[in-house]
Amino acid sequence: MSQISGHNYIGGAYSAAGDTVLQSFDAVTGAALDGQFIQATREEVDAAALAASAAYPAYRGMAAARRAGFLEAIAAELDALDRTFIDIVCRETALPAARIEGERSRTSNQLRLFAQVLRRGDFYGARIDRALPQRQPLPRADLRQCRIGVGPVAVFGASNFPLAFSTAGGDTAAALAAGCPVVFKAHSGHMLTSAWVAAAIGRAVEKTAMPDGVFNLIYGGGVGEWLVKHPAIQAVGFTGSLKGGRALCDMAAARAQPIPVFAEMSSINPVLLMPAALASRGEALAAQLSASVTQGCGQFCTKPGLLMGVRSADFTALVEKLGTSLAALPAQSMLNAGTLRSYEQGVQRLHEHSGVRHIAGAPQQGNQAWPQLFQASAQLLLDADKVLQEEVFGPATVVVEAADDAQLQHIISALNGQLTFTLIADEADLGQCAPLISQLEQKAGRLLLNGYPTGVEVCDAMVHGGPYPATSDARGTSVGTLAIDRFLRPVCYQNYPDALLPAPLKNANPLGIARLVDGETTSARLIEH
Amino acid sequence: MSQISGHNYIGGAYSAAGDTVLQSFDAVTGAALDGQFIQATREEVDAAALAASAAYPAYRGMAAARRAGFLEAIAAELDALDRTFIDIVCRETALPAARIEGERSRTSNQLRLFAQVLRRGDFYGARIDRALPQRQPLPRADLRQCRIGVGPVAVFGASNFPLAFSTAGGDTAAALAAGCPVVFKAHSGHMLTSAWVAAAIGRAVEKTAMPDGVFNLIYGGGVGEWLVKHPAIQAVGFTGSLKGGRALCDMAAARAQPIPVFAEMSSINPVLLMPAALASRGEALAAQLSASVTQGCGQFCTKPGLLMGVRSADFTALVEKLGTSLAALPAQSMLNAGTLRSYEQGVQRLHEHSGVRHIAGAPQQGNQAWPQLFQASAQLLLDADKVLQEEVFGPATVVVEAADDAQLQHIISALNGQLTFTLIADEADLGQCAPLISQLEQKAGRLLLNGYPTGVEVCDAMVHGGPYPATSDARGTSVGTLAIDRFLRPVCYQNYPDALLPAPLKNANPLGIARLVDGETTSARLIEH
Repeated sequence: MSQISGHNYIGGAYSAAGDTVLQSFDAVTGAALDGQFIQATREEVDAAALAASAAYPAYRGMAAARRAGFLEAIAAELDALDRTFIDIVCRETALPAARIEGERSRTSNQLRLFAQVLRRGDFYGARIDRALPQRQPLPRADLRQCRIGVGPVAVFGASNFPLAFSTAGGDTAAALAAGCPVVFKAHSGHMLTSAWVAAAIGRAVEKTAMPDGVFNLIYGGGVGEWLVKHPAIQAVGFTGSLKGGRALCDMAAARAQPIPVFAEMSSINPVLLMPAALASRGEALAAQLSASVTQGCGQFCTKPGLLMGVRSADFTALVEKLGTSLAALPAQSMLNAGTLRSYEQGVQRLHEHSGVRHIAGAPQQGNQAWPQLFQASAQLLLDADKVLQEEVFGPATVVVEAADDAQLQHIISALNGQLTFTLIADEADLGQCAPLISQLEQKAGRLLLNGYPTGVEVCDAMVHGGPYPATSDARGTSVGTLAIDRFLRPVCYQNYPDALLPAPLKNANPLGIARLVDGETTSARLIEH
Repeated sequence: MSQISGHNYIGGAYSAAGDTVLQSFDAVTGAALDGQFIQATREEVDAAALAASAAYPAYRGMAAARRAGFLEAIAAELDALDRTFIDIVCRETALPAARIEGERSRTSNQLRLFAQVLRRGDFYGARIDRALPQRQPLPRADLRQCRIGVGPVAVFGASNFPLAFSTAGGDTAAALAAGCPVVFKAHSGHMLTSAWVAAAIGRAVEKTAMPDGVFNLIYGGGVGEWLVKHPAIQAVGFTGSLKGGRALCDMAAARAQPIPVFAEMSSINPVLLMPAALASRGEALAAQLSASVTQGCGQFCTKPGLLMGVRSADFTALVEKLGTSLAALPAQSMLNAGTLRSYEQGVQRLHEHSGVRHIAGAPQQGNQAWPQLFQASAQLLLDADKVLQEEVFGPATVVVEAADDAQLQHIISALNGQLTFTLIADEADLGQCAPLISQLEQKAGRLLLNGYPTGVEVCDAMVHGGPYPATSDARGTSVGTLAIDRFLRPVCYQNYPDALLPAPLKNANPLGIARLVDGETTSARLIEH
C-alpha cells in the first residue's frame, strides 16, 4: 500500500484503535487486495465528529477565497495521482481505466467549479436593507443578511462513482465549499480508493494550511449510525439505496436536534417515446436506448429503467429491436459482489411477477450481469404495484405500453418521484408533449428532450434531485453548484457597525459581489450614513 | 356574525359536515362570542387537501404577475375590513386596537412585498448553461434551471399574531407567492378573526379569478394531524410551541413520503449587556428592557427571556432597576385562558427551582399576567438544566450573572439555538464583542446590536429563524421575502426547445429578470443558436 494507510483519518492524524479488520477485493476476480482497513470504534467516530466541530469556526470563518484555494489544491492532488491509483480504482470497482480517468477529471473540475462559486460570491445570498430612520410610523433599523455553513457534515459515498460521488466527490466538495468540515464514511466497495483520495486531501490541507479536522475519514459497517446521531453533525449527504437513505433520514429526524439529510436514493428514470420519433428513427432509438441502459453496466442513478409509449406498430418494432440489441450484448462485471447479488434479486423479482414478461436477455448466471429486457402491463403501474417502481440497479429495463394517450397520462400520474424524465420526440410530437410538461415537472428534478439521462453535467443549471423517493428532499441537488445551498443557512445582522459585519455585507463591498440592496441587485459600494 | 360563516372553507365553498361545535371567547371576560364553528371531519380535511392539490397545477402554472395580483387583492380586502373586524380581533385576543391596526398593515404590506418579489423574479433562481456542441471530450447540452412551488402547503397559525402569523400571515403569503395552494388550520384562539380573513381571501380569489382550492381553511382540535399526514400535502409551516412543532415534525418525517416542516418554536432570545454600556446608560437600559419584556404582555417569539452580563456593580444596579421597573407595571390580559395557564405554570417552574431566585413581580393571581423578574445561577445554564432554556411565554425574564468573561463564553456555548441574540454595547465594548460574534452566529438567526429583538421587520434581509429548537430547520425564515424559498424546488430542463421552456428560461427573457447565464448574472436576452 506504499504511503497509503488503512487507518481512519481523524483530525489530521491516522487512528486505528479498533480490532475489526476489513478487506477490499478485486471486483472482477473477487481476490483480496493488499492492505487492511481498521473499522472505526465508537470513540473514533466521536473523535472524528468532534475534530470536524473543532475545525468548524476557523474553517467557516476564513475568507471564501482561501476555501477556494483549498478546493483547487485538492483538485491538483487528485490530478497528480498516477497510474497506480487508476489501477487500484479499476481493480476495486471493475470500471475501465478510461472511465476512471474521465471521472477523475470530473471530480477535480467539480472542485474547481465550486472554487469559482466561492469567488463569484452569489452563494452568500447577500441582502442589505438600509436603515430608514425617518420612516413613519416606525423607523427601520439597518438589516443585512448572508449565509454561513451549517456546521460539520457527514457524507456517505456511493459505490457507483468511486471518485465523483465519493471521498472528494460532490457532497464533500459542496460541504467544504459551504464552510462545513466533513466526516466521510468510506464505502466498503472501494476503501483503498478512499484511502488514496483521503491522503490527497490531507496533502491539500497541509499545503493550504487548513485546520486539522476539516476533513476526516472513517471505515466500517454500522459506524454511520453513530455518526448521524452525533450532536456535532449538522447535516448529512448520502447517495445509495432507498433503504439505506431512509434509515439515515429516520435516525436524523429522531435526534434530540433533528438535522437535514440529503439522500439521493431511487429512480427509474422514465423515458417516453413519442409516435413521430418512433416512426422516423425507431431503429436508432433502439440502439441508443440499449447503449444508455447498459453503459457502465447500468450502474447509474439515472439509468433509464422504464420505457413508455402508446401502443403502435412502431412501438412494438422498437421493443423488438431493443430486445435483439440487448440480447447481443455481453455480460459485464459489476462494482462488487453485493451489487451483483442485488441485481440478480431484482431481475428475479421481475421474472417471478405475473404482470411482467421477459422479452430478451441471457439467463442471469456466472459472476457478471447480463442485460435484460422486460415488458409489464400498464395496469401494474396504475395499481401502484411496487415491482415496477423499484429501481433495479444494473443493465435491465422495463417496457410499458399504454393503450392510448389517456392511459399514458394516468401512468405518468401514478409514477413515484424521479431524478429524470425523458421525452423522445420529433418536431411533430412537440404539440402533444407541451401539455405533459406540467405533470413531468411534478415528477422529476430534470426533464430531458432527445437525450439520455445517463451523463449528468456538473454546472450551475444541473439538478440531480427530485421528489421522493428519488431524493429525501426535492429542494436540493447533489450535482452542480446549487448543491452548496443544502449546507448553508442565513444569518441576519441588525444595526451592526461596519467593522463588525462579515466581508460580504460591509459597505465598501470588499468582495465585489452582487447584493440585493433595498430591493435592487447591485455590486456597488454603499455610502456610510 | 353577519356574512361570516363558522364553516370550513374548502375548494371555494363552505362545508360543515361534522357535529363537533367549537366556540370562540372574549379574551378579557371569558364570555362566549357570537357564532359557532364546526370542527372539520376527516373527510373534510381530505377534501381540503385534495382541493389544494387540484388547484396546484393551474395556480403554479400561471404567470407570477397574476399571483402577485392575487396577493395584492388579498391585501386590499384586508385593508378594507372595517371597525367591526378590528373589534372582533381585539375581543378574541385582548390585544389593543392600535396594535391590531398596525398588525393589519404589516400583514397587507407583507402580501404586497411578496407581490414585488414575484415581479422582481429572483425567486425563480433562473440559471442557464448554454450548449457547447464543440466541447471536448464531450459536448454539453443546453441546461436551464428554475424553481417551482413544491405543492400544497399546510399552515398552522400562531396565537400571538392573529393577523401577521395567521390566516393570511407570513407562511400563507410565502406559500401562495411560491405557487403553492394552502390549507390553513385555524388557531382555536381567534377563529372568528380567521373566518373574517378567510372570507376576505375568498373575495380576492373571486375578483382575480384564482382556482377554487387555492386557499382552504379548517377548524378543530386534532385535525392538523390528518392534514400533515395527507399525501397531497408537500410542506408544513407552523408557529407555536416546541411540543406542538416537534410533534408535527415527527409526523411529517414518518410519512411514506417525508415532507419538510418549517416550525418556529422556542427561543429565549438572550441579551448580553456589556460593561461600558451598563456604566454609561444602565438606567435607560433597565427602562428599555422592561418595555421590551412586557410589550404585548411578553407574547412575542422574540421577547428577551434571558439577560446576561459579567458580574459588576453596574450589572447589579441594572438588575435592581429592572426589578423596580417591572414590579411597577400593571398586569395585562393574555391572548386566551390557555396562554395564561401556560404562563402561570412557567412562572411556577421558576419559583420552584432551587437554582432560581425571584427578584421582583407581584404574586401571579387573577386572570391577568403579572410581570416577573428572576435571577438564576450561571451554573444552571452550564449544567444544561432545562428550566432556563424553556421559553416562558409572557412578561417574565431571567437574569444570569457570569463570574467573568471566560464563564460568559461557556454560558453562550451552552445555550440552545435561538431566533435572536442581542448585544447591548457602547463603542468601548465593541473590541470585546468582536471575538464573540462567530459564536453568536452559530446560536441564532438574527444578531442585534443596541436594539431589542421584539419588532421583526418584514424585508428582504430579515431572518426569523435559527438553530433548533428556535426552529426545526435553521435554513429557513418565516418572516421576510426569503421565506418563499422554503416552498420552492429547482427543476432542470435539458435540451428543451424555446417554445417548451417556462417564461423565466426562454431566450428572449420575456420577464426581464436577472439570470445566471454561463456563470455570469445578466438580464440580457439570449441569441438563439
